[in-house]
Amino acid sequence: MEEQVKLYDTTLRDGTQGEGISLSVEDKLKIAKKLDQLGIHYIEGGWPGSNPKDMNFFERAKELQLEQAVITAFGSTRRPNIETERDPNLQRILDSGVKAAAIFGKTWDFHVTEALQTTLEENIAMIYDSVRYLKENGLEVIFDAEHFFDGYKHHRDYALEAIKAAEKAGADCLALCDTNGGTLPSEIAEIVKHVTEEVSITVGIHCHNDCELAVANSLEAVKAGARHIQGTFNGYGERSGNANLVSIIPNLQLKMNVPVVSDEQLQQLTNASKYIHELANQTPPNNQPFTGKSAFAHKGGMHVSAVLKHPETYEHIQPEKIGNERRVLVSELSGQSNLLFKAKELGISLDKNDPVVKELIQKVKEMEHRGYQYEAAEASFELLLREGIGESYKYFTLDHFNILTQKDGDFTTEVLVKLNVQGDSVVTAAEGNGPVNALDHALRKAIGEYYPLVNEMYLSDYKVRVLDGGDGTASTVRVLIESTNGKTTWSTIGVSTNVIEASWYALEDSIRYYFMKEEHRLEKNNVVAFIPEAGVKNH
Amino acid sequence: MEEQVKLYDTTLRDGTQGEGISLSVEDKLKIAKKLDQLGIHYIEGGWPGSNPKDMNFFERAKELQLEQAVITAFGSTRRPNIETERDPNLQRILDSGVKAAAIFGKTWDFHVTEALQTTLEENIAMIYDSVRYLKENGLEVIFDAEHFFDGYKHHRDYALEAIKAAEKAGADCLALCDTNGGTLPSEIAEIVKHVTEEVSITVGIHCHNDCELAVANSLEAVKAGARHIQGTFNGYGERSGNANLVSIIPNLQLKMNVPVVSDEQLQQLTNASKYIHELANQTPPNNQPFTGKSAFAHKGGMHVSAVLKHPETYEHIQPEKIGNERRVLVSELSGQSNLLFKAKELGISLDKNDPVVKELIQKVKEMEHRGYQYEAAEASFELLLREGIGESYKYFTLDHFNILTQKDGDFTTEVLVKLNVQGDSVVTAAEGNGPVNALDHALRKAIGEYYPLVNEMYLSDYKVRVLDGGDGTASTVRVLIESTNGKTTWSTIGVSTNVIEASWYALEDSIRYYFMKEEHRLEKNNVVAFIPEAGVKNH
Repeated sequence: MEEQVKLYDTTLRDGTQGEGISLSVEDKLKIAKKLDQLGIHYIEGGWPGSNPKDMNFFERAKELQLEQAVITAFGSTRRPNIETERDPNLQRILDSGVKAAAIFGKTWDFHVTEALQTTLEENIAMIYDSVRYLKENGLEVIFDAEHFFDGYKHHRDYALEAIKAAEKAGADCLALCDTNGGTLPSEIAEIVKHVTEEVSITVGIHCHNDCELAVANSLEAVKAGARHIQGTFNGYGERSGNANLVSIIPNLQLKMNVPVVSDEQLQQLTNASKYIHELANQTPPNNQPFTGKSAFAHKGGMHVSAVLKHPETYEHIQPEKIGNERRVLVSELSGQSNLLFKAKELGISLDKNDPVVKELIQKVKEMEHRGYQYEAAEASFELLLREGIGESYKYFTLDHFNILTQKDGDFTTEVLVKLNVQGDSVVTAAEGNGPVNALDHALRKAIGEYYPLVNEMYLSDYKVRVLDGGDGTASTVRVLIESTNGKTTWSTIGVSTNVIEASWYALEDSIRYYFMKEEHRLEKNNVVAFIPEAGVKNH
Repeated sequence: MEEQVKLYDTTLRDGTQGEGISLSVEDKLKIAKKLDQLGIHYIEGGWPGSNPKDMNFFERAKELQLEQAVITAFGSTRRPNIETERDPNLQRILDSGVKAAAIFGKTWDFHVTEALQTTLEENIAMIYDSVRYLKENGLEVIFDAEHFFDGYKHHRDYALEAIKAAEKAGADCLALCDTNGGTLPSEIAEIVKHVTEEVSITVGIHCHNDCELAVANSLEAVKAGARHIQGTFNGYGERSGNANLVSIIPNLQLKMNVPVVSDEQLQQLTNASKYIHELANQTPPNNQPFTGKSAFAHKGGMHVSAVLKHPETYEHIQPEKIGNERRVLVSELSGQSNLLFKAKELGISLDKNDPVVKELIQKVKEMEHRGYQYEAAEASFELLLREGIGESYKYFTLDHFNILTQKDGDFTTEVLVKLNVQGDSVVTAAEGNGPVNALDHALRKAIGEYYPLVNEMYLSDYKVRVLDGGDGTASTVRVLIESTNGKTTWSTIGVSTNVIEASWYALEDSIRYYFMKEEHRLEKNNVVAFIPEAGVKNH
């Protein structure tokens, strides 16, 4: 029977080498739990010999009730010319209490003499002794052959001698590392194939994405006989990152018929990818393959009607299989089928013969002509749609505002706003780091006492784009605002020749959208929506 | 002699299908110019038959003085059952005045009968007629074989029959499209190889990144005989994007010995990648392969000295070859060569041992830490450099301003500005369509009578980007302003937590830069620059 391909995740170790990625012990424990649920076989938790903080993780990881994943520690072979028993790095691996360890060693002769500054013979001894020591202490041992592909290309015999020393010492797996990330898929295939002929234990692969080839290289290695794949979630890692397990897993399972997790686990992939982005405080890229928000997004009217009829001919896999979903974007090319699909998605029942559909399409086109672009502002689009069919969400209306920005030494901005809220006239003042920030502050102050819900949400991104160059600061501007309550995010849009006006529309929509979604939580006497417009207490 | 591999860029067409990517005609013209300088062979400008706005681009692109790139139009084969002469889509391609066109047609039988709802025979006729018609009208024709790989796998004979119809009709190139992005590298290699045996014209490749394999697939296609590669800059495109030319180009040139651009052009790759991110208002991903800020970043630790001694053993390519740079934590050397290169380019003679070089590097690092990024703001960078070596360009200084934005019915903005110009205190007021526009008006009014030159220039674009999400409207913002005198354009930058302050810095730099460049045209009694700072009439 063919040996099963095993997944080895190093998000918690190599992933945190990525610029801007930093995980607390709590985060790491949560991620380990999630990876285990997803069916990952090995979870590399840290490098106890280099980072003493990692000990805490290993200590607490023992309390995790993992179903199958093996927690592993990372480390290096012993230092030159000392006994393994006296090597603090190997000692700490044993102290961490793990059942498996990955230790890296040099396989490129140049690195032995230049970086390690030792002899080629001593390096072979270091590999042999270190692997043997850990094996004698009962650990499963993965030998990470650092710079293996470069070493192989420069001095093949020495690279092979190095990994064979690990095999002879009892290593369970030889993970060949493309440490600099510069190897092409065809070279990976050829070299992995040769290695599998030379050794009789499991061969593994560890790729980096410097050439945007890490996923392809990992798949080629599996085709050539590798049965152990190292990578990180979302491709985090030093420089351009490590091989992205989020893409490798579905490629293996759905494209290459190499099962690595169960179907149910695969359906958790999108959720896990996003969860880890969130814990790592990274904005999930919309265009992330497989799990991104745009990965199964369709644009264009004519195309959309066909997608709805035969999705399999426009999608390389069914998004449900990895827990993602199809989205239809409303864009300039939008037609009736886009609109109907969108409405259905939002739970709004619309008959295609209803005259309101034609009116809505007309309205969308008109707004797009003015510079609105709803594909990145789905919350504004939902409001437009719902108001188009007669629902009303006027929780407050603006009477007027004055914003004063001054440069007199410092730059300061102050604002005075007058709103109508539930029949009351409310006047407030606030300051901020610019006109929009000040306006946002004043608005919250004014409505917060009527709708405390507003304090749960905040703006998480603000983008301004000038639509038609040529008029400089007098051009039409499009403002996109992203808001969040810490759990979900939503985007709204405003367009005007006046950037403050555009910002106001986007701000207003953002708050109205949140109130609409949380309608049931507005206090009873505050509910003014879902009733005919005439009944709204405005004046 | 082996046929040269040609690069076909579709950033301006397929790239803008990416969610959140939107380019004005001005942006498109600038990108076309940049791509031409970089040595791209074909630039697909748009789809005139589907998007009438694109006509404007083709009209204006005729005025671009391109060195080698061929501007192409995109379109589809004629509709079923009409004559090519009456097909509005083909007609618009001819109207656009391009010398080359890419038209797509169906090669997957299922799509013919289901999406097009016509017969298999009629589809073949549509392909033949459309290619022939464009050829008869003197165009170079690329046939984009839509869904080719899926079509080939489902019904090989029909897929081949379809592309052969295009060949027979005189097509110059058959671009095989992995439209759904679901094909594996090994399949791409096998199918491309077979096609090159079946046809005698150039075979091309068009990949999508749904499996994170688009770059590998494109390279495999070249290995299998493809000689025309379609992709986008930074991998923009629908869903998970198109094949990323930014990664494909150096892989071909530096790894596979397939020269596609000159060495000098390759050195512009990082700059071009960033420039296009800026115009598309996208945050450049730090971990972007080859051109990202982290792509050659080495974290501190034991291997830093080894990296400096033998960078080739820790880096898969020399970053200078693609215009990127090594970043090392401890390195004071980082940035020096760039700075000296830039200075030389601007005609400023700087000796690398001059202590001012160290000061300048320190200053640039400090500004970058605050959020400045000079890639897309070379005018501000030149001012920084020149002022750093003691030149002075203080034509006017700001005393204070008040900006009042009101919403009371309409949105209005009025501003009062007080400046010091050539020893005089000048107070003016103006209004505008927003705070920055009003400030711009007032500034011009105030200095126009001292420096009539200001009336020759105007702002042509204005962009705002929030730098660190999470604080919404209170975050640091970066403002980029582009100005023009109708002949040349220049870009300036300002950064602050206050958008008005950031805009002010960019505005001020924009005017100062123009005056500096046109120094010789300032009236004699107005010349206050190029003299020691102490002599400037400020108070």
